Amino acid sequence: MGHFNAMRSVRLVVLALAGWQSGMVFAQQAGAGDADPLPSWEESVSKAAIVAFVTKVTRVDSPTFVPVAERVAVFDNDGTLWSERPAYFQLMFTVDRVRQLAPQHPEWENQQPFQAALDGDLEALAQSGAEGLTRLLMVTHAGMTSDEFSQTVKQWLATARHPRFDRPYQQLVFQPMLELLEYLRAHGFKTFIVSGGGVDFIRVFAEEVYGIPPEQTIGSSIKMKLEMRDGHPVIVRLPEIDFINDKAGKPIGIQKVIGRRPLAAFGNSDGDLQMLQYTAAGSGPRFCMIVHHTDSDREWKYDRDSHVGRLDKALEEARQGDWSIVDMRRDWRVVYPRER
Amino acid sequence: MGHFNAMRSVRLVVLALAGWQSGMVFAQQAGAGDADPLPSWEESVSKAAIVAFVTKVTRVDSPTFVPVAERVAVFDNDGTLWSERPAYFQLMFTVDRVRQLAPQHPEWENQQPFQAALDGDLEALAQSGAEGLTRLLMVTHAGMTSDEFSQTVKQWLATARHPRFDRPYQQLVFQPMLELLEYLRAHGFKTFIVSGGGVDFIRVFAEEVYGIPPEQTIGSSIKMKLEMRDGHPVIVRLPEIDFINDKAGKPIGIQKVIGRRPLAAFGNSDGDLQMLQYTAAGSGPRFCMIVHHTDSDREWKYDRDSHVGRLDKALEEARQGDWSIVDMRRDWRVVYPRER
Repeated sequence: MGHFNAMRSVRLVVLALAGWQSGMVFAQQAGAGDADPLPSWEESVSKAAIVAFVTKVTRVDSPTFVPVAERVAVFDNDGTLWSERPAYFQLMFTVDRVRQLAPQHPEWENQQPFQAALDGDLEALAQSGAEGLTRLLMVTHAGMTSDEFSQTVKQWLATARHPRFDRPYQQLVFQPMLELLEYLRAHGFKTFIVSGGGVDFIRVFAEEVYGIPPEQTIGSSIKMKLEMRDGHPVIVRLPEIDFINDKAGKPIGIQKVIGRRPLAAFGNSDGDLQMLQYTAAGSGPRFCMIVHHTDSDREWKYDRDSHVGRLDKALEEARQGDWSIVDMRRDWRVVYPRER
Repeated sequence: MGHFNAMRSVRLVVLALAGWQSGMVFAQQAGAGDADPLPSWEESVSKAAIVAFVTKVTRVDSPTFVPVAERVAVFDNDGTLWSERPAYFQLMFTVDRVRQLAPQHPEWENQQPFQAALDGDLEALAQSGAEGLTRLLMVTHAGMTSDEFSQTVKQWLATARHPRFDRPYQQLVFQPMLELLEYLRAHGFKTFIVSGGGVDFIRVFAEEVYGIPPEQTIGSSIKMKLEMRDGHPVIVRLPEIDFINDKAGKPIGIQKVIGRRPLAAFGNSDGDLQMLQYTAAGSGPRFCMIVHHTDSDREWKYDRDSHVGRLDKALEEARQGDWSIVDMRRDWRVVYPRER
């Protein structure tokens, strides 16, 4: 066996032993090479802060080295990993679903909030308040098995298109954040979604789009029960709220599912404030980052006065504390991935 | 650079890239070599069934190959990964904790179920029923922060000794099951605990003892709230049941946290029946195994008539279906790990 071949076969064997099948090797290599692992980020303060943090907690020779098991990074979803305008994408799904179900419910035509949904009147929908939205959610998200619900979301994602960009919703994810997720994973972080949105809605696309498996997706939930159908156990979704994973609910959701305090947290609105505070309050090095929507050309520009993704107190706290703030317009070379 | 050195340095670089730090390489190697990865198992039907199943879902050339992401294995804890006699170990903790707190509660001396706990009368405790046990649980498991609770459990594990074996409770784990966990992980499985016990109790030792991190531990829970103390957010445990992860609750707990059906499930009692049925009902190859306690010399012997870990319907179903049954006395060369 020649020198080159010997080296090559050693490498292959080691790769095989190291779990090549699971894709871990490539994930690990992605961030470890010389190429910039965050090419969609400008050489900004926020990018430098990310790299500095990851370096100081992952270098074995760092005085603030953190073992792999404790490298937990949590990400809000709406407005942090993908867009949330003109309304949360799950609400867009809900409205489309109401329209789809309407022929079986002629009574909806004269009932709010169904009428507003059928008219696509997001303003009127918002005015129906939490109670109205909950009614819509229950008729569209409950009363079926969890497999059936996933199937419905899957079909919607395959066919629906965003009104402004005329692209599938799952293509309106932030390319710089995809790179960040990958960069963190390449450095031994476990990446979690911690969203106010419905956990079983997000799970349908999170693995393919973000590389985040269902067991690392935390969100709001409705109650469920086990039922036997044709002798087989299925899980049925019930029209009753189980847990709202928003605001003070986010640290609780983290404790329920993860059971340890995150090392890093990423959000974009006041709904993420408590998650960021809870993360920041841990001992040792912690990292908190806010995505500030400042780009009306390529995405949207909003903060204090927005009723979707309002960013007010958290922005204040970020400025006073040592949290990073991403200025979307300045810091991101690209917003969305290239169309496929 | 000589030939050997070149090969060695290639190997080192590849190991480093492959996430050597995280221990993944060694975990992967453990099952990949020639040595028997399950040395505490006799060459039994149950061992052969495990190996056959793992081989058929992990060999790339197998017609029933399953991608790594879907290799989810769920384990009951009490009676499956460690012993559960004379009572669930969490109940032993609860009783010890009541004794510890008793000086601050002179009224307990004449109140059930506290009196029974103070007398160490497990029979009388059992008679106090679910209501009595819940009262005990609430005074010992709620009213503190989650960090304080973990600390209390940690101290108990460090000092308490099992009445029969005079060893720390966390040493009464089943050596063959530790090997099985490791064997599955070496083949790309993610291992989860799905227990009727309290999730935050199990999390205190599961990582060190089983190699299962807190985010892969599912159990029963009480409600929690976020509170600011000295300007820092802490999580406070409330005296109210949130979720009972037992019987029909186990598949629900799996859907809540994992969000996909397990490929393999391991249990020992009727409390695991629905989890085993739910796993078995998935499409493609699935594996269900029951640990049958048949060894009164080295552990305990019980099934149908036991009120701790009763195994009746699940044993029937295992015998009718294609589930594996471990005969502890015959199939295990060793029950507990060697004393350290």
